Amino acid sequence: MTAAITFSNLPEFCAVLAELPGADDTAIAAASQRNSQLTKPPGALGRLEELAIWYAGWRGEAAPTIENPQVAIFAGNHGVTAQGVSAFPAEVTQQMVFNFQAGGAAVNQLSQCFGATMTVEAIDLDRPTEDFTKAAAMSEDGLTTALRVGWNAVDPKADLLVTGEMGIGNTTSAAAIGNALFGLDAVEWVGRGTGVDAAGMVRKTEVVRAGLARHAGILSDPLQVLRCLGGRELAAMAGAIVRARVLRIPVILDGFICTAAASVLYKCSADSLDHCVAGHLSGENAHRLMLKNLNMDPLLSLGLRLGEGSGGALAIAILQGALACHSGMSTFAEAGVTDS
Amino acid sequence: MTAAITFSNLPEFCAVLAELPGADDTAIAAASQRNSQLTKPPGALGRLEELAIWYAGWRGEAAPTIENPQVAIFAGNHGVTAQGVSAFPAEVTQQMVFNFQAGGAAVNQLSQCFGATMTVEAIDLDRPTEDFTKAAAMSEDGLTTALRVGWNAVDPKADLLVTGEMGIGNTTSAAAIGNALFGLDAVEWVGRGTGVDAAGMVRKTEVVRAGLARHAGILSDPLQVLRCLGGRELAAMAGAIVRARVLRIPVILDGFICTAAASVLYKCSADSLDHCVAGHLSGENAHRLMLKNLNMDPLLSLGLRLGEGSGGALAIAILQGALACHSGMSTFAEAGVTDS
Repeated sequence: MTAAITFSNLPEFCAVLAELPGADDTAIAAASQRNSQLTKPPGALGRLEELAIWYAGWRGEAAPTIENPQVAIFAGNHGVTAQGVSAFPAEVTQQMVFNFQAGGAAVNQLSQCFGATMTVEAIDLDRPTEDFTKAAAMSEDGLTTALRVGWNAVDPKADLLVTGEMGIGNTTSAAAIGNALFGLDAVEWVGRGTGVDAAGMVRKTEVVRAGLARHAGILSDPLQVLRCLGGRELAAMAGAIVRARVLRIPVILDGFICTAAASVLYKCSADSLDHCVAGHLSGENAHRLMLKNLNMDPLLSLGLRLGEGSGGALAIAILQGALACHSGMSTFAEAGVTDS
Repeated sequence: MTAAITFSNLPEFCAVLAELPGADDTAIAAASQRNSQLTKPPGALGRLEELAIWYAGWRGEAAPTIENPQVAIFAGNHGVTAQGVSAFPAEVTQQMVFNFQAGGAAVNQLSQCFGATMTVEAIDLDRPTEDFTKAAAMSEDGLTTALRVGWNAVDPKADLLVTGEMGIGNTTSAAAIGNALFGLDAVEWVGRGTGVDAAGMVRKTEVVRAGLARHAGILSDPLQVLRCLGGRELAAMAGAIVRARVLRIPVILDGFICTAAASVLYKCSADSLDHCVAGHLSGENAHRLMLKNLNMDPLLSLGLRLGEGSGGALAIAILQGALACHSGMSTFAEAGVTDS
């Protein structure tokens, strides 16, 4: 397929971004035609119809099914936690990675429930990124390495990808990225994360402001925003999303952190997320604003704000349902049902 | 359990409604306690937490799982179709029942996708109800019989029930019931159903007005509203919902027609739907208004307007995900994760 495509530095990653494949128009036409013949009034399955046709386009088949979803989780630690931006201590990142590996986290249950394979990449947890109020979070090599962790984590045999994360402090990083990419005041982008109190919210907001001030010179370059304000798990999610595109694997985005990583790609190239759907609207304050900037309408809105890929994993069921209907239903002719 | 409870006429059905069992407070307390110890920030699973505790309360277990969901579909034909209220001819009801039995409809795919057993009851399809603009849709015996079809269709071994329907013309019946129970002008309750045109919408609205005028004397009695304006499949859904309550089986309501049937019970006794959750917000116009009257917040909002139980069947996945997390996750102590 496109196995030769790879990158070993940021300019090469940008070159990949500039040459992303599109969906298969023939498959879209065939799927649309099939949809119009299924035993239901036109449009009666609502968004499920649109999702099935979209998925068919990326998979290049008129009537595909979802057999092998992957939930890819990336974990990173953040120097900015030194500023007291989280309700949990930084060691929880590693503890939760052990919990993922032992099968005890929410995302384990959801992945199992909907038949997804779960992979976990813990990226240099004993070496947090730099505190972005004082320095760039990552070097250019560090960013490239993290992008490649994500790139390499995608199973080429997967037919659906959810990207998720764990990283104490990373709502602060995601808020800073949102603010850098989409403007407005820092207060619009900062939320309670794992549950900081009012004083913590004030600290988070000040930290985001300080981060944008410190890196004012690079804010117009999305990949530099990711490098200076991001984290390794955010970069890895971005790398995984791009790899999925190259492999024509549709992606379900998770919540605020995942969408921040995707936003970097969107700002590089607005069509780079055409193979992605927003899995859910997070309970984290600024996710709605971020999705609005991406023109994305989330599949679910159930107040989840856990990260881990949990909301995205839950949304696998919606796509499974959409494709089960699209590819399994009888046509009017097959069923002997009178069309209107 | 409560096998002795049954009814053979409307007063006996009312007596069942007056003695409905409640949820198990001990199980609710135990489930809430468990929820607070799971490896996630408090509240981070949003509505999934509330759903899991609610389900646990009805099942009487601190950490239950969903093993045996049932999708119960009821079909009926409507005399009011003679008024030209549907985009499809009445014979489609029977054709779609054959399609359900052959496995070709949307709800077949969704039931299979989420591991539900599907049952179909076609109720006297060759004998439509009376045209409600001219007479009561059903006799009192006819209503009782239809309620009992629903009552008897519920598998006592099911641990989750979705009630769905098929019946050309039944959005008109549901609109009339909504209007009778909750007031406002008929135009607020009438929608496009399977896709009638503007002229059809005008006819539907006039038909609803005529129905309410014809039966003006009984509009304050919810079961008489069901008898005069309803259909057999609506009555059967009401019977199934009550049987599920007696068996402490949680129920996912489907769309507009199913919610109209549930509304009759709500108007009989406001707590009669405490074991029910709204599976989705239908694309049918007045469903939002009806749910608002029931103080219900739907789990999904994806523009489905197919009926059949399809939206409810899709929502099974949300409850499965909620219970998988609740009953499968590790506690902070088990996982060695630092609580905040």
